Amino acid sequence: MLILSISVLAVAGWSALRWYHTGGSDAAAPLAMLACAASGFVTGGLLWFLARRDPGNLRQREALLLVSLAWILGAALSAIPFFLWAHIDPAVPASHPFTSFVDCYFEAMSGLTTTGATVLGSPGSLIEEIPPPLLLWRSLTQWLGGLGIVVLFVAVLPTLGVGGKKLFQAETPGPLASGVRPRIRETARVLWLIYLGMTLLLIAALCAAGSNPFDAICHTFATVSSAGFSTRDASIAHFTMPQQVIIAVFMVLAGINFGVLHLFISGRYRQALADKELRFYLAILLLASIAVTWSLVRPQFGTGADPATIAATVRDGVVQTISIQTSTGFCVTDFDRWEFLPKAILFAGMFIGASAGSTGGGIKVIRVLIAAKVCVAEIERVFRPNVVRPFKIGGTPVDSQMRLATMAYMLTILALFVAGTLTLMLLEGGGRCDLSTAAAATAATLNNIGPGFGAVGAAENYGWFSMPSKLVLTALMALGRLELYALLVLFTPRFWRTQ
Amino acid sequence: MLILSISVLAVAGWSALRWYHTGGSDAAAPLAMLACAASGFVTGGLLWFLARRDPGNLRQREALLLVSLAWILGAALSAIPFFLWAHIDPAVPASHPFTSFVDCYFEAMSGLTTTGATVLGSPGSLIEEIPPPLLLWRSLTQWLGGLGIVVLFVAVLPTLGVGGKKLFQAETPGPLASGVRPRIRETARVLWLIYLGMTLLLIAALCAAGSNPFDAICHTFATVSSAGFSTRDASIAHFTMPQQVIIAVFMVLAGINFGVLHLFISGRYRQALADKELRFYLAILLLASIAVTWSLVRPQFGTGADPATIAATVRDGVVQTISIQTSTGFCVTDFDRWEFLPKAILFAGMFIGASAGSTGGGIKVIRVLIAAKVCVAEIERVFRPNVVRPFKIGGTPVDSQMRLATMAYMLTILALFVAGTLTLMLLEGGGRCDLSTAAAATAATLNNIGPGFGAVGAAENYGWFSMPSKLVLTALMALGRLELYALLVLFTPRFWRTQ
Repeated sequence: MLILSISVLAVAGWSALRWYHTGGSDAAAPLAMLACAASGFVTGGLLWFLARRDPGNLRQREALLLVSLAWILGAALSAIPFFLWAHIDPAVPASHPFTSFVDCYFEAMSGLTTTGATVLGSPGSLIEEIPPPLLLWRSLTQWLGGLGIVVLFVAVLPTLGVGGKKLFQAETPGPLASGVRPRIRETARVLWLIYLGMTLLLIAALCAAGSNPFDAICHTFATVSSAGFSTRDASIAHFTMPQQVIIAVFMVLAGINFGVLHLFISGRYRQALADKELRFYLAILLLASIAVTWSLVRPQFGTGADPATIAATVRDGVVQTISIQTSTGFCVTDFDRWEFLPKAILFAGMFIGASAGSTGGGIKVIRVLIAAKVCVAEIERVFRPNVVRPFKIGGTPVDSQMRLATMAYMLTILALFVAGTLTLMLLEGGGRCDLSTAAAATAATLNNIGPGFGAVGAAENYGWFSMPSKLVLTALMALGRLELYALLVLFTPRFWRTQ
Repeated sequence: MLILSISVLAVAGWSALRWYHTGGSDAAAPLAMLACAASGFVTGGLLWFLARRDPGNLRQREALLLVSLAWILGAALSAIPFFLWAHIDPAVPASHPFTSFVDCYFEAMSGLTTTGATVLGSPGSLIEEIPPPLLLWRSLTQWLGGLGIVVLFVAVLPTLGVGGKKLFQAETPGPLASGVRPRIRETARVLWLIYLGMTLLLIAALCAAGSNPFDAICHTFATVSSAGFSTRDASIAHFTMPQQVIIAVFMVLAGINFGVLHLFISGRYRQALADKELRFYLAILLLASIAVTWSLVRPQFGTGADPATIAATVRDGVVQTISIQTSTGFCVTDFDRWEFLPKAILFAGMFIGASAGSTGGGIKVIRVLIAAKVCVAEIERVFRPNVVRPFKIGGTPVDSQMRLATMAYMLTILALFVAGTLTLMLLEGGGRCDLSTAAAATAATLNNIGPGFGAVGAAENYGWFSMPSKLVLTALMALGRLELYALLVLFTPRFWRTQ
């Protein structure tokens, strides 16, 4: 609460300065953000006051509850500036999505979960008509969400023995009886420095490549967090090709386990390059990009297309594949118009996702790797039931509990995908929401991608969904981002029982 | 080989008698079947001669190889009558599907795997234009396949320690060091008697309800094997409502574990009714039928529909749901015209399927049950990682290896579903095969249902697929029926290595 309040206050400060310089034509945005900061400070301060005598030792249940509440309430707080702005500013039409709090909550949750699915973009609610301070806040929610997720999954949860600690082993050798808090603090500091370093580097690179600072900052926030909100209705199709390439490089970096990035930064290249997940992550990106690009470029051969057109098509294929696979969700072209095969590859990429311990979403490469290996091992077990082979990924043994947890995670994701698609179909009942759109919207929110296919494709947005559907999609974003369990535990009776 | 040859010879005998009585107008069918029997006897005899000195002790690898070869070669042998008939009978047009051996192989594999997907039914290849002896043979392949599957999964494989022996524990307490063959023989004898009893009972019931003996016999073969070939283009919509209800009851019975049926027959009702899988199987059937029927009947309320129309709609809902869920695949109505929700329920039912150790297909209720319980247990493990609870289904403990195998089975089925859909889309490339059709065709063959949705819906057939697609679908039928592993092991290098 306090971090969000300080952040929104900073943006409000810039907004007020801007208001002062432009001669007072745009007071709604700073006012809305000030009100948000005030309510955040009041709520946060109250909570801090109530808990001031608590020693602060988190156990599993408290940590899980804290995590889910942080995202659920954090999104509500982050939605306030959008909502108030739409109601304060008389120029905003009553049909604007931000006049509905559900839409604002959707947008804020989309930012905090680094999804990048937006309700903006239709005529009357174009992104470029939103005041820049609000766009900056919208971008900043992603950056804060991305940082929160990395710290949570790499530093906090493994130390508490929650969730798949072995998935993030690079920098966290597991819980110790003593010194839990210093370890969290130290790991979090390293992650924060890497994240900040990536951010500053990308802003500098984009500015050097000719972008204006505002677009550079906002797109950097969206890139290093693998989120994908743009300040432009055309998304990164608005940028020049060198700028797009720079963004693509950083999308790839943001999808790498931050523990592995730390190994790189501290010079341990050999150890970093030996990481099985990194290798598979890069291999999948490479193969998917080649397959997508090939299927796009092949029809252009022999039609006399000039090299610049072909280069643009190659850029479309590679950058769009990276954008979807890393769960960023920038659009460099309207990929919904592509043929079946490249779209199917993108769809599969949505589910595979990026690396564990990165800001990227999806099931994560390491889980897919473990699950694939389990399935292959089971085939062999059928004719050699008594042969026990050690199960390892890149030299690290994966015990049977971890394997079972991975398989359960994948099946639960698939079950939620089916349930989400079904719910959307029942709620929307025909209209714009055909089965492909419902499936794409579910996949794109559950895996924290952003754009999907059909009526939620690259040139579309989520504004047309009914309110209940938007709440379902918001829940899917939170479920996917918090890797299911932090939210699902709230629905088990045993979670609420005293020990 | 020999069993198939004797069977086809019996049908050939009836066919020859029929030919004699009708004055020699229809010699193609008996000739084709005689040729099939002859080639079966020669091949089978040759194999028997080559292996006559073998002591006959099967180990896992030999058993798995035998099983896959039995279905692969058995389908080739069973396809011969269709193929020869189409080439001997001058009245058969060159465009008839049976003039292609791939189509005949598809039809035969569909019968032996108790799928019931057919290439027949378009104008020019109507089912009712096929000579009755060939239709009888087509029905008989299902009956033989169903018997083979039950004996295989309940009697043979568990005794050899192959596959999920615990799934079929009712009558098979596991392998013993001695006496393996007597146990197989005894169990197989009981299964065979139950199967034969169900067959005779259903034939008698259908005849008593006014069906002609030929249709009664053919549909009985298709019902007790959960297969679904009909001798009518209208499938069981051709029957009267009482006949359809009788068929529905036997579809439900055929989807029950034969071990549980044995408990019923031997009077151990209490033990039988305590079976968790039976309870869930019946509960799913009940709930799905109610949901489907309700969504069909609701629009008829208040429109002044007479009770007979409503009764017919209720019949449509209940019988069609049972037919799909048990993986039989008879059509009582064109369910492809239903709305989204009932179709979605049928689609989910395809994957859940019937009970393990029955003739039904799909993933099987017990596996879905175990997987669901594992996923729920994992949620709890997140906040109580050190609490170990015994994992039981209906009082029977399920060890972690069994759980992992179940999860792997489900993920492999889903992976094959995705791969099959993708392959069909790439092979067919637009045309009649849209994404829903490709997905439905894959689901309906992999789960051994028969009809799907769209261009493979209730009023359609599989004849229009290209040859490569038909081979893919044939492979999916075999993979689903043999529960994947018997075929998948053939693709692992270690399977072929000497010990």
